[in-house]
Amino acid sequence: MGEIVLYDYWRSSASYRLRIALGMLGEPYRKVPVNLLAMDHKRPEHLARNPQGLVPVLEIDGQRLTQSLAIIEYLDETRGVGFLPEDAVGRQRVRALSHSIAMEIHPICNLSVVGEVLALTRGGDAVRLGWMKKFIGAGLAALEVMLDEPRTGRFCHGDRPTMADICLMPQVYNANRWGVDLDRCPRILAIAEHCAALPAFAAAYPREELSG
Amino acid sequence: MGEIVLYDYWRSSASYRLRIALGMLGEPYRKVPVNLLAMDHKRPEHLARNPQGLVPVLEIDGQRLTQSLAIIEYLDETRGVGFLPEDAVGRQRVRALSHSIAMEIHPICNLSVVGEVLALTRGGDAVRLGWMKKFIGAGLAALEVMLDEPRTGRFCHGDRPTMADICLMPQVYNANRWGVDLDRCPRILAIAEHCAALPAFAAAYPREELSG
Repeated sequence: MGEIVLYDYWRSSASYRLRIALGMLGEPYRKVPVNLLAMDHKRPEHLARNPQGLVPVLEIDGQRLTQSLAIIEYLDETRGVGFLPEDAVGRQRVRALSHSIAMEIHPICNLSVVGEVLALTRGGDAVRLGWMKKFIGAGLAALEVMLDEPRTGRFCHGDRPTMADICLMPQVYNANRWGVDLDRCPRILAIAEHCAALPAFAAAYPREELSG
Repeated sequence: MGEIVLYDYWRSSASYRLRIALGMLGEPYRKVPVNLLAMDHKRPEHLARNPQGLVPVLEIDGQRLTQSLAIIEYLDETRGVGFLPEDAVGRQRVRALSHSIAMEIHPICNLSVVGEVLALTRGGDAVRLGWMKKFIGAGLAALEVMLDEPRTGRFCHGDRPTMADICLMPQVYNANRWGVDLDRCPRILAIAEHCAALPAFAAAYPREELSG
């Protein structure tokens, strides 16, 4: 079916999720950088790949796929990677944890949204930092409570990494980037430590690429 | 397994999605209003149901479930309602369309986010309206392009309603509420018309309830 190609930006959380997932999958793939700071994602060639002008985009199985969580579900359905547990209730929980990050925290802290906040407030770094701390802090605090139950193990759901951990790790990276205090999130910190020890998570860690 | 209970707010898009899904399912359920304007969602009894302080919450099968799309996937897996197509590529597409609304438009226009924008800008209705028009307008314009392909039919994916239509209809309601011009979105308008003609969609339409 040809090579797997990931259109990627090193600091995009959604790209980071897919780098982890592809690492867990273990199939080789090629990365093509799309530099968001240079506005490469708004150029016609990228809009042709994804009308939303977002990364990541994944070319696989003769398809061009968008939306990181929809892609992770696809990889799970076609390759049986175990990103979701077997039972319906467990699957619901992993999706709910994933969505609580991917829907309630990540989009609100996206470049275009924060850019609009800065434009409206004529604000600078302090406004940006306040915004990030507020929404990442509140979102992860709620997630910490959601994790306070027996089904949480070494990872968000049991003792194997799932889609929820794939969503969590990039959000913890962002929390650290913006100096969000996670002292009251011991479960999240413990899970992040277990994730960081896995090769697929370590290999996916954001590193600026000169070609990007 | 006991009755099905939906903790609901009439004007919440995510609640609206579940009202449609439960209507398509056809099992009876009881609605419990959670009035967001009265801040009922931040009270201890609701935070005990959902630490994120969001609606909807669904009690079903002895479980208390959160996150509307994760619940819709659960209903599909346990009841075979056909919210997603059978083939993996089609399922990916329906999820990508759904997430392009539920992740890229809806959270950014949530009460708490817009409230923070108004607080930071000391803005009023004009700032709110500008924010809604910008993000709903751009998001639906991108969706319109995503729908420009042969797999789109009378509905977002083929000729039967899926999770994507369940996400689309509440977003079109919001677009109308905030006066977003959809003249350049003929595919979305046609699909919305087909949805509105279905009983489950019509019954779920937002209506203020005196008890809420």
